[in-house]
Amino acid sequence: MRCVYLDNAATSRHKPNSVIEAVNNYLKNIGCSPGRGGYECSLKAGRIVLETRLAVAEFFNVPNPEQVIFTHNITHSLNYAIKGLLKKGDHVVTTSMEHNSVVRPLRSLEKRGIIGVDFISCDDTGMLNPEDVSRAIRDDTRMIVITHASNVAGTLMPVREVAQIAQKHNLFFVLDTAQTAGVYDIDFQELNLDVLAFTGHKSLMGPPGTGGFAISKRAAREMVPLIEGGTGSISDREYQPDFLPDRFESGTMNTPGLAGLKAGIDFIKEVGLNEIRGHELALAKKLIEGLEQIKGVRIYGPRNINLQTPTISITVEGFDTGELSFVLDNEYGIMTRSGLHCAPLAHRTIGSFPEGTLRFSIGYFNTEEEIDYTLECMERIVGR
Amino acid sequence: MRCVYLDNAATSRHKPNSVIEAVNNYLKNIGCSPGRGGYECSLKAGRIVLETRLAVAEFFNVPNPEQVIFTHNITHSLNYAIKGLLKKGDHVVTTSMEHNSVVRPLRSLEKRGIIGVDFISCDDTGMLNPEDVSRAIRDDTRMIVITHASNVAGTLMPVREVAQIAQKHNLFFVLDTAQTAGVYDIDFQELNLDVLAFTGHKSLMGPPGTGGFAISKRAAREMVPLIEGGTGSISDREYQPDFLPDRFESGTMNTPGLAGLKAGIDFIKEVGLNEIRGHELALAKKLIEGLEQIKGVRIYGPRNINLQTPTISITVEGFDTGELSFVLDNEYGIMTRSGLHCAPLAHRTIGSFPEGTLRFSIGYFNTEEEIDYTLECMERIVGR
Repeated sequence: MRCVYLDNAATSRHKPNSVIEAVNNYLKNIGCSPGRGGYECSLKAGRIVLETRLAVAEFFNVPNPEQVIFTHNITHSLNYAIKGLLKKGDHVVTTSMEHNSVVRPLRSLEKRGIIGVDFISCDDTGMLNPEDVSRAIRDDTRMIVITHASNVAGTLMPVREVAQIAQKHNLFFVLDTAQTAGVYDIDFQELNLDVLAFTGHKSLMGPPGTGGFAISKRAAREMVPLIEGGTGSISDREYQPDFLPDRFESGTMNTPGLAGLKAGIDFIKEVGLNEIRGHELALAKKLIEGLEQIKGVRIYGPRNINLQTPTISITVEGFDTGELSFVLDNEYGIMTRSGLHCAPLAHRTIGSFPEGTLRFSIGYFNTEEEIDYTLECMERIVGR
Repeated sequence: MRCVYLDNAATSRHKPNSVIEAVNNYLKNIGCSPGRGGYECSLKAGRIVLETRLAVAEFFNVPNPEQVIFTHNITHSLNYAIKGLLKKGDHVVTTSMEHNSVVRPLRSLEKRGIIGVDFISCDDTGMLNPEDVSRAIRDDTRMIVITHASNVAGTLMPVREVAQIAQKHNLFFVLDTAQTAGVYDIDFQELNLDVLAFTGHKSLMGPPGTGGFAISKRAAREMVPLIEGGTGSISDREYQPDFLPDRFESGTMNTPGLAGLKAGIDFIKEVGLNEIRGHELALAKKLIEGLEQIKGVRIYGPRNINLQTPTISITVEGFDTGELSFVLDNEYGIMTRSGLHCAPLAHRTIGSFPEGTLRFSIGYFNTEEEIDYTLECMERIVGR
């Protein structure tokens, strides 16, 4: 049977060979803990971490590589930002299109009486009106946290406008780039970001178990580290170091994963962001146009590749999305994701709660022919 | 040049081939995100995580696999235990031989006025007197947290006695098994543990970026999750689920790493804990006895393989340990770790602060011949 992977919003698949080789090379030929011993091999491992840090800093235009922190995944990064920066009495502005990695930490702090939160309602295509953000700012507002693009409907958020609002009111600005890093240009300095949270294993092409965040100097001064412990630095002290990146990185890192992440970023640089985005969006356009021709299909989100990522959510009249997803996989080898995608608020916003949607998410390795095949199969299932 | 790896207390090297193959197999042939979609391949990835959970539960005799939580590394596990369980006004008893992964979170909570801590002084071999633990218990004591063995001097702690004290006073008992899991028998139920923190990449033979903890039901009920977000479960809810393991696992896991960890545990089961421990301790005995013959060498710790792990710290009269470590690597290809090993309190305890020690740490892949060679080289360097 054919095998068409359309779940790239969950993780990119498969990784470039160079990524798999980099992981393998670390495990086979290096295998030491980085930078905590003076011997040659441990310095080699330390160099891998440093090179990955430099690559991430360059990729997002972060002024200094030490402002790049590595974490287990982007959920950890967002928790560090939210729980590490917010204090009792703070108010936060966010959107109704957020993933649970933002919603749950915020709801948790709110429930414990620590913060107040406003979830700005987006329209039913998932679009945020920046004026609504402006209107929600209060005297005690201290942070704006938004996703760069919805993981459900693909909707791109007006980040530039929101960045200006954050800057005008001198607020921390936290951006969740889970769905965009590796496809769209993201400039840490231009957006005046305080925290740019990224995942390594989606469009950055790295392995799972990688991610992190870039942090502004002012946010770094205020952020309380959620995790403390051995850093290999100032080992004579019983307190966490106060310098970057050590302040926010404790314990042994996922060095093989970081070796893979570096190779992933190299791959993207070699192909070029424009080429990647152009390819993915062309396929998304084809898929949207094809789905629009199929009777009973409802497409959520902007339905316009200038306003969205190549992630497309649908429902089909008379079909259960879970069943549809199962048939696509089981009978045709097409892998999609159905349900609520860890984003209940987003589904409420676009009107697909609690049933959820069937989500197609396109990646760089998908082909035009795969989209044709997917459309054919959809016709066959829905038409029968 | 020869290559003798004696830094196994930092990470085991190299991993068994089956571990590298398991990581590779996931990246090449699976590559999906686990269990969050209904398609076959994502279920396969979910099965990998489940099988690893089952393997860890069986290995440590944890009653239910859902009581096994995976984290980025053991430092994260210890932070979850300490920061997730302790509340304002609590008192904690720990030892002077702890790693900074325990010391720093405790010092941080203490500094913020949240908890009180007593660091029980161990003797200059690193040995803990359980009666001192008993004496330190106060009415407001809520937790005992100790390392199973020192990462500096190898000293094994009297865990059974401490377990009884914890049980008698109805305290949370948290054990750091970074230096022992995969070499010594550790029985979660027999020790009546509340949190058994483990690392995946040391003697459990898994890749870096793996670790976790086993948690008792009573501790799970009280532990506040430090990280919250998408769990792939009850996605209709804006709050963290309250069931295990999801309550403490958010975001995409290091699935390739966990595939490797499963293979590592399988490797240990195949060889047998007794065989592994016997081999390592025989080499440690040889190394200790050999070092005792070299003029000017001072060996720290128990110097008795019944009372310690195969980790041996030394200083040499007239030599800087950093320089010694460098010469061992540079001229003879012997990899050791010098300095304070992220454990300043432990070095104070054994009398090697602030200079630190040179640490040899033996693993299963070391050979008798390598120990002979190391002793020869030490003779040559120190004697010249």
